[in-house]
Amino acid sequence: MRPVSEFERIRAMLRIAADLDSPDEVVLGAGDDCALVRPASGESIVLSTDLSIEWVHFRRDWLSWEAIGYRATAAALSDLAAMAARPIGVLVSMALPRELKTPVFEQLTAGIVACLESSGAVLLGGDTSRSPAPVMIDITAVGAVEHAIRRTGARPEDELWVTGLLGSAASAVLALQSGLQPDPGARQKFEHPEPRWREAIWLAKRNALSAAIDLSDGLAGDAGHLSDASGVRVDIQVGSLPIDPSLDAWSETLAPLALAAGGGEDYELLFTSPPGIVSNLLADFRLTFGIELTRIGQISEGEGVSWRDQAGGPTDPPASAGYDHFT
Amino acid sequence: MRPVSEFERIRAMLRIAADLDSPDEVVLGAGDDCALVRPASGESIVLSTDLSIEWVHFRRDWLSWEAIGYRATAAALSDLAAMAARPIGVLVSMALPRELKTPVFEQLTAGIVACLESSGAVLLGGDTSRSPAPVMIDITAVGAVEHAIRRTGARPEDELWVTGLLGSAASAVLALQSGLQPDPGARQKFEHPEPRWREAIWLAKRNALSAAIDLSDGLAGDAGHLSDASGVRVDIQVGSLPIDPSLDAWSETLAPLALAAGGGEDYELLFTSPPGIVSNLLADFRLTFGIELTRIGQISEGEGVSWRDQAGGPTDPPASAGYDHFT
Repeated sequence: MRPVSEFERIRAMLRIAADLDSPDEVVLGAGDDCALVRPASGESIVLSTDLSIEWVHFRRDWLSWEAIGYRATAAALSDLAAMAARPIGVLVSMALPRELKTPVFEQLTAGIVACLESSGAVLLGGDTSRSPAPVMIDITAVGAVEHAIRRTGARPEDELWVTGLLGSAASAVLALQSGLQPDPGARQKFEHPEPRWREAIWLAKRNALSAAIDLSDGLAGDAGHLSDASGVRVDIQVGSLPIDPSLDAWSETLAPLALAAGGGEDYELLFTSPPGIVSNLLADFRLTFGIELTRIGQISEGEGVSWRDQAGGPTDPPASAGYDHFT
Repeated sequence: MRPVSEFERIRAMLRIAADLDSPDEVVLGAGDDCALVRPASGESIVLSTDLSIEWVHFRRDWLSWEAIGYRATAAALSDLAAMAARPIGVLVSMALPRELKTPVFEQLTAGIVACLESSGAVLLGGDTSRSPAPVMIDITAVGAVEHAIRRTGARPEDELWVTGLLGSAASAVLALQSGLQPDPGARQKFEHPEPRWREAIWLAKRNALSAAIDLSDGLAGDAGHLSDASGVRVDIQVGSLPIDPSLDAWSETLAPLALAAGGGEDYELLFTSPPGIVSNLLADFRLTFGIELTRIGQISEGEGVSWRDQAGGPTDPPASAGYDHFT
């Protein structure tokens, strides 16, 4: 028999999430054996899952429980952004060790619900358990899309673009690892990353996305996934990366470029676009979303990721020393 | 940066699952940022999630890794059965401690895939991570249904029925806890439970389901959930429970009835039916599925779960001593 507290926790989760407005696609929300969703005519349901594990993906002494819940949810919704899909809701599985009592569970749930609210999504279901050791959160994101953007769509001549700034999460982690206060902007982006699904849908509507991926593993790794999936070469101009300015503080000991290229979990959108489209959208995009789009490279025939200097010649990949995904 | 082995593991998972036949609803399977599913006209997508954690839900010295993967998947698909939904696929998150190498991961995946294959479902996506301690598996089940059966539909005068036998998992766990070999039939049901979605759809088509729930927490607990959701009283005849015969071996030390009523994880279907329907279906059901349907009680106005003796008088609930969900 499961302990009574499991049902109490599920009830607490449902209570905290009860005020969220349900998207039209939700036929039946959390509380029965399953949730039911039905896409609008011509749309598909979009599904992805994302694990957050204590000591691997986060540390409880670095983040509030609210921020841990928020980040885990944002990471899951970010996968929807990579397909230019609209969030509908999430299913949440949480395992907590016995020493963490109900208030911790409620703070985690409040962070999850805050992130859902900012995306107009709801809690569709979940499971809870005690954990023998670490806190574990697994979030399945559920969205809807008419025309999904895939990793496979990059073509030679396409341009390579990125939203926002790179290296913010790496900057915050470096500070925390060193016992320092992170830069306030970097901390905000680390604690409450914004999944770029609105930006992705806006760009997709303007035919500006041929392929997309969200930056969870870091630019170097995710550009490699995009290259593999599309069967193309990705050239990145190292001089053009939009590096979070808080990384300048580390320039004496570590290369900000390496941190921006190798650090993960910024949850910005890396995308390719047919030539000449995005440059006409820059001002509108900035006005609409308050962040920049930056062209950082080019797609060509071939394979793999190549790094280019300002003259266009080959250069070494930025060393990824200094940031190792919390491990 | 995530360790390289994570991507290797995801590739291994995709490779092992590659031969599964895709249901029509799957627009895009695993491998991109998200999967895409589209229900047939008039149908909804059905979603549920189920955690399996080492030392809470299973022990690695009691089950093969293949059986651990199979059971975790069957438990998730069983939630679809409770709504009379057809499985489409699953998203799988797995966290393994470092000491467990690739072959263990592959055996877990093989067990997941074997269960998917027996239900005509596919792998729709997943995530992997190392775990600081226990093995953790979270499975989100994705199905489709036209008319979902809910926990809320039980009405006074309805009959209470159950599929198959109760207490098989409890019997196997008791043996393993005592250092004995489980009864072969009980072991088979413990290692490879069969989610009853075909049975549920068959019964729903014949208007034999007014409410349903799968027996994951045990008859006593799950009957309580059904009572709460429907706002009715559930009367259970203690003398009519279809107890797994392997529990007879424990009758000198423990009451088989208490084990059948309190033991969880049999994944049989507990359902209510309008009067007089199921009794006409019994022979057909047995011929079709090779298991029995047993009437174990009655729905009335009121609330809660009441236990009844053979004369219909009130009796004490079966004590649930002896089985405590592996903890």
